[in-house]
Amino acid sequence: MIKVGIVGGTGYTGVELLRLLAAHPQVVLQVITSRADAGTRVYQMFPSLRGFVDLAFTHPDQAQLEKCDLVFFATPNGIAMQQVRVLLNAGVKVIDLAADFRLQDIASWEKWYGMPHACPDLVAEAVYGLPEVNRAQIKAARLVANPGCYPTAVQLGFIPLLEAGVIEPNSLIADAKSGVSGAGRKLEMGNLFSEASDNFKAYGVAGHRHLPEIKQGLARAAKKEIGLTFVPHLTPMNRGIHATLYGRLSREADLQALFEQRYTNEPFVDVMPAGSLPETRSVRGANHCRIAVYRPQGGDTVVVLSVIDNLVKGAAGQAVQNMNIMFGLPETTALNNIPLLP
Amino acid sequence: MIKVGIVGGTGYTGVELLRLLAAHPQVVLQVITSRADAGTRVYQMFPSLRGFVDLAFTHPDQAQLEKCDLVFFATPNGIAMQQVRVLLNAGVKVIDLAADFRLQDIASWEKWYGMPHACPDLVAEAVYGLPEVNRAQIKAARLVANPGCYPTAVQLGFIPLLEAGVIEPNSLIADAKSGVSGAGRKLEMGNLFSEASDNFKAYGVAGHRHLPEIKQGLARAAKKEIGLTFVPHLTPMNRGIHATLYGRLSREADLQALFEQRYTNEPFVDVMPAGSLPETRSVRGANHCRIAVYRPQGGDTVVVLSVIDNLVKGAAGQAVQNMNIMFGLPETTALNNIPLLP
Amino acid sequence: MIKVGIVGGTGYTGVELLRLLAAHPQVVLQVITSRADAGTRVYQMFPSLRGFVDLAFTHPDQAQLEKCDLVFFATPNGIAMQQVRVLLNAGVKVIDLAADFRLQDIASWEKWYGMPHACPDLVAEAVYGLPEVNRAQIKAARLVANPGCYPTAVQLGFIPLLEAGVIEPNSLIADAKSGVSGAGRKLEMGNLFSEASDNFKAYGVAGHRHLPEIKQGLARAAKKEIGLTFVPHLTPMNRGIHATLYGRLSREADLQALFEQRYTNEPFVDVMPAGSLPETRSVRGANHCRIAVYRPQGGDTVVVLSVIDNLVKGAAGQAVQNMNIMFGLPETTALNNIPLLP
Amino acid sequence: MIKVGIVGGTGYTGVELLRLLAAHPQVVLQVITSRADAGTRVYQMFPSLRGFVDLAFTHPDQAQLEKCDLVFFATPNGIAMQQVRVLLNAGVKVIDLAADFRLQDIASWEKWYGMPHACPDLVAEAVYGLPEVNRAQIKAARLVANPGCYPTAVQLGFIPLLEAGVIEPNSLIADAKSGVSGAGRKLEMGNLFSEASDNFKAYGVAGHRHLPEIKQGLARAAKKEIGLTFVPHLTPMNRGIHATLYGRLSREADLQALFEQRYTNEPFVDVMPAGSLPETRSVRGANHCRIAVYRPQGGDTVVVLSVIDNLVKGAAGQAVQNMNIMFGLPETTALNNIPLLP
Repeated sequence: MIKVGIVGGTGYTGVELLRLLAAHPQVVLQVITSRADAGTRVYQMFPSLRGFVDLAFTHPDQAQLEKCDLVFFATPNGIAMQQVRVLLNAGVKVIDLAADFRLQDIASWEKWYGMPHACPDLVAEAVYGLPEVNRAQIKAARLVANPGCYPTAVQLGFIPLLEAGVIEPNSLIADAKSGVSGAGRKLEMGNLFSEASDNFKAYGVAGHRHLPEIKQGLARAAKKEIGLTFVPHLTPMNRGIHATLYGRLSREADLQALFEQRYTNEPFVDVMPAGSLPETRSVRGANHCRIAVYRPQGGDTVVVLSVIDNLVKGAAGQAVQNMNIMFGLPETTALNNIPLLP
Repeated sequence: MIKVGIVGGTGYTGVELLRLLAAHPQVVLQVITSRADAGTRVYQMFPSLRGFVDLAFTHPDQAQLEKCDLVFFATPNGIAMQQVRVLLNAGVKVIDLAADFRLQDIASWEKWYGMPHACPDLVAEAVYGLPEVNRAQIKAARLVANPGCYPTAVQLGFIPLLEAGVIEPNSLIADAKSGVSGAGRKLEMGNLFSEASDNFKAYGVAGHRHLPEIKQGLARAAKKEIGLTFVPHLTPMNRGIHATLYGRLSREADLQALFEQRYTNEPFVDVMPAGSLPETRSVRGANHCRIAVYRPQGGDTVVVLSVIDNLVKGAAGQAVQNMNIMFGLPETTALNNIPLLP
Repeated sequence: MIKVGIVGGTGYTGVELLRLLAAHPQVVLQVITSRADAGTRVYQMFPSLRGFVDLAFTHPDQAQLEKCDLVFFATPNGIAMQQVRVLLNAGVKVIDLAADFRLQDIASWEKWYGMPHACPDLVAEAVYGLPEVNRAQIKAARLVANPGCYPTAVQLGFIPLLEAGVIEPNSLIADAKSGVSGAGRKLEMGNLFSEASDNFKAYGVAGHRHLPEIKQGLARAAKKEIGLTFVPHLTPMNRGIHATLYGRLSREADLQALFEQRYTNEPFVDVMPAGSLPETRSVRGANHCRIAVYRPQGGDTVVVLSVIDNLVKGAAGQAVQNMNIMFGLPETTALNNIPLLP
Repeated sequence: MIKVGIVGGTGYTGVELLRLLAAHPQVVLQVITSRADAGTRVYQMFPSLRGFVDLAFTHPDQAQLEKCDLVFFATPNGIAMQQVRVLLNAGVKVIDLAADFRLQDIASWEKWYGMPHACPDLVAEAVYGLPEVNRAQIKAARLVANPGCYPTAVQLGFIPLLEAGVIEPNSLIADAKSGVSGAGRKLEMGNLFSEASDNFKAYGVAGHRHLPEIKQGLARAAKKEIGLTFVPHLTPMNRGIHATLYGRLSREADLQALFEQRYTNEPFVDVMPAGSLPETRSVRGANHCRIAVYRPQGGDTVVVLSVIDNLVKGAAGQAVQNMNIMFGLPETTALNNIPLLP
């Protein structure tokens, strides 16, 4: 049994981690910390967990965390980097669901996240936790940087094309749409029901923190610098990301076969038949990414549609997938729940 | 292993049955029939099932169904009553998710459902599948009438009060609100997104088919005729029923204790602490009913709040619970999935 | 032309007041104050007003307000009562959209609103601004207490029955459902999209501030004390209140005729034909209340369905209606916009 | 006064036309036809119109229509082209809100709409009713082809760039998102609340009927053939289109100034300040198009955000705007209603 701790965990990523871990046959939930809500039973905050999780939030306690085999950080950006070193030194593995270890370029990280980085050496060690790319390194990692939600959907959609070199890498477009839970359980005006419902808007057009993360991953796939325009949008639904990706074809290729081959052994990437229209609800609550690829009117523009549940494959589910890999378990353990439709 | 067939199954109750049964460790899905969609893979209609259910819809075929141990009818009202007898004669158990066997009063059934009943004798044999009331009879049944969604939420909320005789049985009020999936996957104008979203309305105020079903169940609990005003409403959400129940107190009682004792051994009824406000999302995708009981301002009106997922405890989940009971399995088998929140 | 000022006005009531007043042919918007947002153009906060309202929020400035003919308070409870006296003394009329002047019983007000009242004498003078009851007094008033949203929907539904003495006044039930904008533009967890969407719940069951306001109004209609159980619910839509009202018939009456006669000259109360099901969207953006009355199964329970737009007839629209009355204008001026459907 | 008839009018475009025309000071609604619903009062179908429109649907009657000054066709594609000639011959002006007269290339129309065209000569005469492009021709027209919803949002966003020749015309991308009312009031499975809510998906990726219409308009602006990839999406809201447009800059230009100059005299196009994020709700119920233009990270990709209400500027509102132009009225008559927010 894996002894697991969670730091943070009062947000949507936290409750989703608890949902998945509570049903994991190899996990014992040892501790979940929250400075603000210490003493509160988890199910008092999240009544969906009544009868499933008895744990209460506790004050962060280093000794408690060091007794774990694995600690998840479901904290705001900038917290994990303060606390990870002592845990690693104590032999605890760490998966950070925030952004502290995602960007290898420290200067870029400090610019986009607006603070100095506390441990650049650990960034160098950290493995970017996208199993479809880094499975072997994750297996051996002490510290995994769990990818962002947009970066997961966008990378999985572009990678087969870039690795195969069939699109021009300098003019990629990612038009992405996210449900409101992607903004977190935060008291911000734009997250109110009466602001976000029956409404659609873009945001972060001038620049979004996930842009450098996506570019880093796509450059790795293309083995060269790439150019990307990334426009995220807020759509009035709870869960789900739909990334619509555009690239210019640089040589002929059987795109459908390309995708199917790239993901043939991936348990969580579903390349749908030609002509499919992936819906976000088809992955609601599940760790799957469903993808369709198009070449409209036989022109030279490739269109990829990629959908995930932002809280599962885009956050907590991928974190559990990474945990399974790190601890030698079957990768799908506790991740085989069927999407909820409708 | 239980060999299971499903008749019908292209509606929301059907896809929910498939979601639950596909994860059931003691079930083999043998056949799912649909006249209109024969030949279609189930996952083509419900992409959420891609990778989980490989079955295709087939033309109804009596021989196939007779090889099953259990057949679920997820058909419109009036279909099951035509087909059940031969299945029972062949030794197949049946759970009908429609209304054909719910009302013991045949005349009442024929009035509310607008057709003659095909097999009154089987109605007499059928067991009303509310485990919290009829567990022993369900265990022995060949034919179970799975309760309606409103009747489940309303009965579970009123039964402790009526059994204990603490409220006047002649002036009950059930103000119930349902998500739109309760109307089924039917091409009716009122079910369109642009009709139902950002809107709230009552319907069936003059009379709703679930009224006699609820009255039958409440009379059984009260051991006398009861008077009930039932007003259902449509609320712009997918899943969930919230029943707000009103009764007049006829004698003093510790209401909280009454509910806790009544349901103390029930795995799927959660009597919440005094002062709780059950939310429909706290049972989304799960087979639980959460209940809170109030006596506002210490007056003589009792208010009960009762929430279920209309597709799970209100339909497919309760059907699987009944199956588990009928086949001697632990009652919670395949029904322990944690609600999806948010 | 009426010179109008608005104190507060950064909430949903405020933007709705601006929408209605900007189209009012007899109104000049002089000043809108907001301590926190002084200097911001109104349309920067509410882009829907771009091209229609050029005003900027300003610091509250007594002199500016005293130049107005009428000042609306769209402030949190407890603000207006601090500022009204000087305005009245300066000859300015006042309509308070908050609760400061709604309850004639000061002790009750202080209990429910948790603060001492600053000017009980002005409460005695204030007129409760429900035109269907107090039209003449409103016409003569200096100070109008604009009714709450629930109280408007519930009173309009019960008043014909209580005035005519056809229901028992001691066991009234009001089961009310509100869209989320009713909670205001406030940073509270329950107002987040990911908390409120695809969810339904009751709140304030043990006691809600609108309860004494409703009871005061119904007692006036019944000419005696009344007993009321009031359960408000939150439904996942933006605008709209649906009140489902239950009463016990005490003598025979033609209920349909009763309602039609009571409201025959009311421009904003629409008694729908027998058998109608009023929808909240049928009044979206409009100042109308639509009502239907039922006697299910011919029993002795009367059911009234009453819908309003909580921001219009439940707040800003009713305030403009009161203004029209106070200034001798046709009551429907600027209030004849047709509901937006879908 | 303009005597107006409406053919069709039981869909969302119809009810929206009625909402706008009922408030138009220069319009008399003479007749509204519907074969299926003849005899039904309009407000029985659309209760929002109770008290505002007394008309009943009637059987189509040529004589009645010929007495009108103007007839709107709010019919499915392929109807107007059968009936327009006799009306024109009778001196009646016509605005077709369907697609029958939108494409000048008859072969293309017949391919995309799957039927032979009934009157190619009238297509040649018809004026494409986008006032921002064709105001003078509309003024003189007998027959106006009212633009589609997507084409309106996309053209208004691309036109300034193409007319000025600052982007490459051969690789345009339009990623568009529509509320569900855009699909019409049609009994199709995908339009059900439980299919469309809490879900996001693309559709028509391989080809959508609005593609040739958009290409025709953009080619006119560019004065050469253009290349366009158009991907429409369905987003879970009632009203609104958000078009996110991508082009490759071909020469330096002050994009903000370009847009402001192009639309400086347009009453219904709002070029927002640099850095703005237009929201669909900011035009809900109004005839406005709000636009923002970006050049992310100073690269050579131009991003334009363009929002409209699909039922107003994308259909009925633009039709009324065209009517105003055709009859010499101030263009904004009856179109100055302020958007409804929230």
